[in-house]
Amino acid sequence: MPKIVDHEERRKQIAEATWRVILRWGMKGATVRKIAQEAGVSLGALRHYFTTQDELLLFAMKLVKERAAQRIREVQMRDLCPKEMVIQILLEILPVDEQRMAEMEVWFAFVFHQKYRESESEELQVGFFPQIRSILSKLQQQDLLKKGLDLETEAEKLYAIIDGIAVHAMLESQRLLPERIERVLRHHLDSIFKAD
Amino acid sequence: MPKIVDHEERRKQIAEATWRVILRWGMKGATVRKIAQEAGVSLGALRHYFTTQDELLLFAMKLVKERAAQRIREVQMRDLCPKEMVIQILLEILPVDEQRMAEMEVWFAFVFHQKYRESESEELQVGFFPQIRSILSKLQQQDLLKKGLDLETEAEKLYAIIDGIAVHAMLESQRLLPERIERVLRHHLDSIFKAD
Repeated sequence: MPKIVDHEERRKQIAEATWRVILRWGMKGATVRKIAQEAGVSLGALRHYFTTQDELLLFAMKLVKERAAQRIREVQMRDLCPKEMVIQILLEILPVDEQRMAEMEVWFAFVFHQKYRESESEELQVGFFPQIRSILSKLQQQDLLKKGLDLETEAEKLYAIIDGIAVHAMLESQRLLPERIERVLRHHLDSIFKAD
Repeated sequence: MPKIVDHEERRKQIAEATWRVILRWGMKGATVRKIAQEAGVSLGALRHYFTTQDELLLFAMKLVKERAAQRIREVQMRDLCPKEMVIQILLEILPVDEQRMAEMEVWFAFVFHQKYRESESEELQVGFFPQIRSILSKLQQQDLLKKGLDLETEAEKLYAIIDGIAVHAMLESQRLLPERIERVLRHHLDSIFKAD
């Protein structure tokens, strides 16, 4: 199936170029023209993936989701105790390095765009409350959490902490350094997990 | 000083019109033209306050800060126990009604704009970590918080919860209703305050 292989290869090549452009110029500076140049393809070839800035944003957001999901799968393969597993998974989506900060920037730009868009473009799920609740629910079933927790409220609180930290790390990166992010996260999980 | 009175009156009139327009059309639909019409003034008269969409956003953001500060001063006049005082102050800045949701929308638009702006326009302080830390510090001095709290981490966590909830309430308003917001907030403060 040479055609499909070509398509996948081309897609990968464009995805990587898109990512390098976002890292270098930020989401705002990531134009279709710059990406074509970086990927070494014509603007015409790029139209297969996105024709407008809106479609570019959607493409970038899908990349972010894929990248994060892949990293989370890798964490899940590791031999970690449940608490450490949760911490490492959450650190994969928090902006603790340049790559993840760029992902956060795309996420923020996308969420903002999706809220105010006028056209009926493709809708993408950006919230992850159900996933957070599901993780806490499993931990409770395994009897790893403190007794008597109000799981619904705890899930809402953990979800708020994650996105609150993410927004602050992006806007106040001088104060909220990676070690500080990890400290807050560990501190909070210690408060809901049973003592080791 | 008739001129100053006129200026203040006009400013108030435009501020109120700006607010009504934002409530009705959202930040994205709030154009200089619509505000002039709503305020019953000419576009020329409005130029004294803002000439561009950027300046309008700055004006709206200042309005948000003034409105919130005024409501917080009113809460501080009330006869409340310290924990209830903190809860009521925080509820003044969280999007628990239509007015505060519109304020949040302006805040979000402004923060996003300030991060990506190209021109060197006026910078406005939008974060409030020092205020949160100061509140917790005073409560600790009054011996109202649990023993042995790591104040710096607790301040970071409370700050994240507030902005995390604010962002989620704006993006997932169907799920995160006002009662739910208040429940998470009370639940968290109960976890750091000494038992009554």
